[in-house]
Amino acid sequence: MRRHRARLAEAKEMISVGKISGAVGTHATVPLQVEESACAHLGLEVAKVSSQIIQRDRHAQFVTTLALIASSLEKFATEIRGLQRTEILELEEPFEEGQTGSSAMPHKRNPELCERVCGLARLIRGHALTSMENITLWHERDISHSSNERIILPDSCLVLDYTLSIFTYVMNGLRVYPEKMRQNLEVTRGLIFSQRVMTALIEEKGLNRQQAYEIVQRNAMKAWNEKINFLDLLQADPEVTLSKDELAGLFDYGYYLRNTDAIFERLNLPQVPDLREV
Amino acid sequence: MRRHRARLAEAKEMISVGKISGAVGTHATVPLQVEESACAHLGLEVAKVSSQIIQRDRHAQFVTTLALIASSLEKFATEIRGLQRTEILELEEPFEEGQTGSSAMPHKRNPELCERVCGLARLIRGHALTSMENITLWHERDISHSSNERIILPDSCLVLDYTLSIFTYVMNGLRVYPEKMRQNLEVTRGLIFSQRVMTALIEEKGLNRQQAYEIVQRNAMKAWNEKINFLDLLQADPEVTLSKDELAGLFDYGYYLRNTDAIFERLNLPQVPDLREV
Amino acid sequence: MRRHRARLAEAKEMISVGKISGAVGTHATVPLQVEESACAHLGLEVAKVSSQIIQRDRHAQFVTTLALIASSLEKFATEIRGLQRTEILELEEPFEEGQTGSSAMPHKRNPELCERVCGLARLIRGHALTSMENITLWHERDISHSSNERIILPDSCLVLDYTLSIFTYVMNGLRVYPEKMRQNLEVTRGLIFSQRVMTALIEEKGLNRQQAYEIVQRNAMKAWNEKINFLDLLQADPEVTLSKDELAGLFDYGYYLRNTDAIFERLNLPQVPDLREV
Amino acid sequence: MRRHRARLAEAKEMISVGKISGAVGTHATVPLQVEESACAHLGLEVAKVSSQIIQRDRHAQFVTTLALIASSLEKFATEIRGLQRTEILELEEPFEEGQTGSSAMPHKRNPELCERVCGLARLIRGHALTSMENITLWHERDISHSSNERIILPDSCLVLDYTLSIFTYVMNGLRVYPEKMRQNLEVTRGLIFSQRVMTALIEEKGLNRQQAYEIVQRNAMKAWNEKINFLDLLQADPEVTLSKDELAGLFDYGYYLRNTDAIFERLNLPQVPDLREV
Repeated sequence: MRRHRARLAEAKEMISVGKISGAVGTHATVPLQVEESACAHLGLEVAKVSSQIIQRDRHAQFVTTLALIASSLEKFATEIRGLQRTEILELEEPFEEGQTGSSAMPHKRNPELCERVCGLARLIRGHALTSMENITLWHERDISHSSNERIILPDSCLVLDYTLSIFTYVMNGLRVYPEKMRQNLEVTRGLIFSQRVMTALIEEKGLNRQQAYEIVQRNAMKAWNEKINFLDLLQADPEVTLSKDELAGLFDYGYYLRNTDAIFERLNLPQVPDLREV
Repeated sequence: MRRHRARLAEAKEMISVGKISGAVGTHATVPLQVEESACAHLGLEVAKVSSQIIQRDRHAQFVTTLALIASSLEKFATEIRGLQRTEILELEEPFEEGQTGSSAMPHKRNPELCERVCGLARLIRGHALTSMENITLWHERDISHSSNERIILPDSCLVLDYTLSIFTYVMNGLRVYPEKMRQNLEVTRGLIFSQRVMTALIEEKGLNRQQAYEIVQRNAMKAWNEKINFLDLLQADPEVTLSKDELAGLFDYGYYLRNTDAIFERLNLPQVPDLREV
Repeated sequence: MRRHRARLAEAKEMISVGKISGAVGTHATVPLQVEESACAHLGLEVAKVSSQIIQRDRHAQFVTTLALIASSLEKFATEIRGLQRTEILELEEPFEEGQTGSSAMPHKRNPELCERVCGLARLIRGHALTSMENITLWHERDISHSSNERIILPDSCLVLDYTLSIFTYVMNGLRVYPEKMRQNLEVTRGLIFSQRVMTALIEEKGLNRQQAYEIVQRNAMKAWNEKINFLDLLQADPEVTLSKDELAGLFDYGYYLRNTDAIFERLNLPQVPDLREV
Repeated sequence: MRRHRARLAEAKEMISVGKISGAVGTHATVPLQVEESACAHLGLEVAKVSSQIIQRDRHAQFVTTLALIASSLEKFATEIRGLQRTEILELEEPFEEGQTGSSAMPHKRNPELCERVCGLARLIRGHALTSMENITLWHERDISHSSNERIILPDSCLVLDYTLSIFTYVMNGLRVYPEKMRQNLEVTRGLIFSQRVMTALIEEKGLNRQQAYEIVQRNAMKAWNEKINFLDLLQADPEVTLSKDELAGLFDYGYYLRNTDAIFERLNLPQVPDLREV
């Protein structure tokens, strides 16, 4: 969103120009001073050269920028939709306390707001295309862009504003279920730590890569296929030369969060609460 | 437009389906007979299988078909815009008798209706894109298409209807200037007949291709560069072995219209008035 | 895919035309019989009227049809991607028996083929847009379409062929996990039967809708929030006037499959194996 | 093109980032310092936060920027195509001295390069759409963009480079026919000066607007319909209170070029040769 904020500022500056240069842009009947004075009153820059119209690459940059923003909102909304599935359920978009679900399934809440964000992004992408086709106007007089700009310019702005408003509401009231996140992590019964085990066998116990891989792979497949805890299997395997305590120490989610603070710092964001405490 | 008529009929048939199959399409709570009876009442076919919704490839075919039609209208309108330029002026879109031009240039009439047709085609092409993106819906429940279809389905229909209405008006009142067409043909001072002259030199006078080309090319470049009548030059060239009458006979527009009737017949269209009489 | 098969046949017929009508389509130097004979040799229909080129609405119909097909393939592939998530895992795209996963997570298999199908659909949709913009050519001589058609026509065909080939492989080797499907259904501890319970209370026990909804809603929320089996709660609730056996009888997946055979019959598909036996 | 240069610089900066942050962007196995050092070696900024991939809004900005540039090139090329028509012929794209036209019409030169520029712009616009659809990737691992980016990223760059190269050649060798420009201006027999006459009648001779408009309109329509010189008509009209010399003085092309120098100055461009001398 920071990148989009910069893009939008650029696009807004690019489109904030005016012109009063006469029917074909010669300024024959309107001195440059009139144009400059009028634009200054309106808070616009002067288009330094113009025909009957202002060049449409400016407008196309503006609408494609709105489409880029809408597409990122679609990305975020898609993320939530994916995580709101009943089987995953790590997040839910907000719903009012009193709000009941359907009579058919009272517990069920659909990500309707996020779906709306996605659908409207498709609309603005379509308008972006229209705006790019408007660039190729003929000579000094061609107002073929005018008919569609009456639609796409206000609609792109209104729809993106509406989408931003919906999505802000979603983010402000987003329901987050850290316990379910942990459960989903544990769906694999510890297999997500397999790389750490292999690395430890190599670096700390001196096995070569091939040996380490075979040991880990054998236990991993067995854990997956027979639904057994991966750590238990490893601790019982005589070929695994790591001690039970060493092994248990590797199965640590905190390891993957070690650099979280540094990443947030790089972003100039305030420190997040320590996720390892959750 | 005949091809589009066929495409539209197919697209309309494809989209004229209904469904009442329950929340995920199982018909668990709604027997198939209810769906069949309700659709029959509405003059719709039954979607033979459905989820919560009817599949969106149907709607995408419909909107892309509208975009194809709008694009052909844009083609025709572009043709008129090209031929309405002041320098060419073979056609003009209609204007009311009493209607005056601008105060600046009272004689000037801009192809505003045709420009509008072009601009609106770009809008519908944008909507076609949106409709194609709607096809990829998730599982049995995803209404992300709904937000944009409220806009693109009515707007595509309304805008195409409006465009067809404008363009029908344009065609009904199109001003055609055959005399200017002839003048424009003569802009080249007869050079458009150069191929016929070359062919006659080869086929009737036995020159080889290289000889014929050199003779024609030399006279053609001179006619073009010095703005001299091509026929006069040829008739004065001693190397041109065609007689003056033979040459004059080749400079005949009718030759290029010989197959016009046959083409119209192939299209099952009524014979056109003999253009050679114009 | 049946609908797409019909669309592709229509689009192929529409584009299978040829023309030999001279530089501006007058047939002045090429009799109609030459065109008809040459096209017949090539197995093509004759374009009944043409300019220097064949009209591009034909090609645009063809490429948009390919885009519609690719978009449906994207839909199917997205379905599989959704169901292949580790937490859901009802389906997996094929992988070779000997094929090992990554060293990091030996059990993990990513839906790479399905992702490829999705990405390539976006490419063909872009080409569809290009093909629609090609319709508006100028007058009798404009070959601006030629530069991009050298790319989009072969690429759309090749990429769709490749995508179909990948997806056929995916479907032929698709791994289906019915046991996991059942587990996922049971994630809600029976809540998916709430509508049936409510209907039975109304229709068989004479409660009004409001009463029935309150009873079901109360138990549903308790089941969901406290992770208790919904059937157990209902059987223990004195206000539920259905007997324990009656209640148990309602919790039957088979009820939702009652019309499966009828739907397959409507599609003229062979009867599926009885899913209730799985 | 100056605006595009600025946009391209921004887009290039936006896409010139790298990342080495591990499989899901946690930096668990790769310290931030490795990423920073590697990117510095490559002359790239570090993507401050990343998942398995760098976010695709960066790439979409890049490709849409290329599409904007291609669309402006299409605009310029369309301008030349319009002005190269035989009837208008104010410009021609370059052709080699020895290069002969077709045997059919040796004088005729088609704007093939400009048409190519137009067709290729349509291709890049299609790719822009594809790039925008790539933004919505799922979670930390989705490489669906990869399949189409192998095509659209190199092709957009190569095609735009090729298009720029063609169009630079066109501009360097553009044939300009000022004499034909003057002839085309005179096609209206002086009607383009009607506004100046009306203004002079009002401002210098004290007529009201309605009177002035009627006098000018009457003479303008007569000049247009009967192909008579507008100045002659005005000079012969007793109601026109301007003297013959005053009238002749108004029919001055130079009047429309008065502000040309000021416009070029505003653009910080070197003064153009005095067009009034041509």
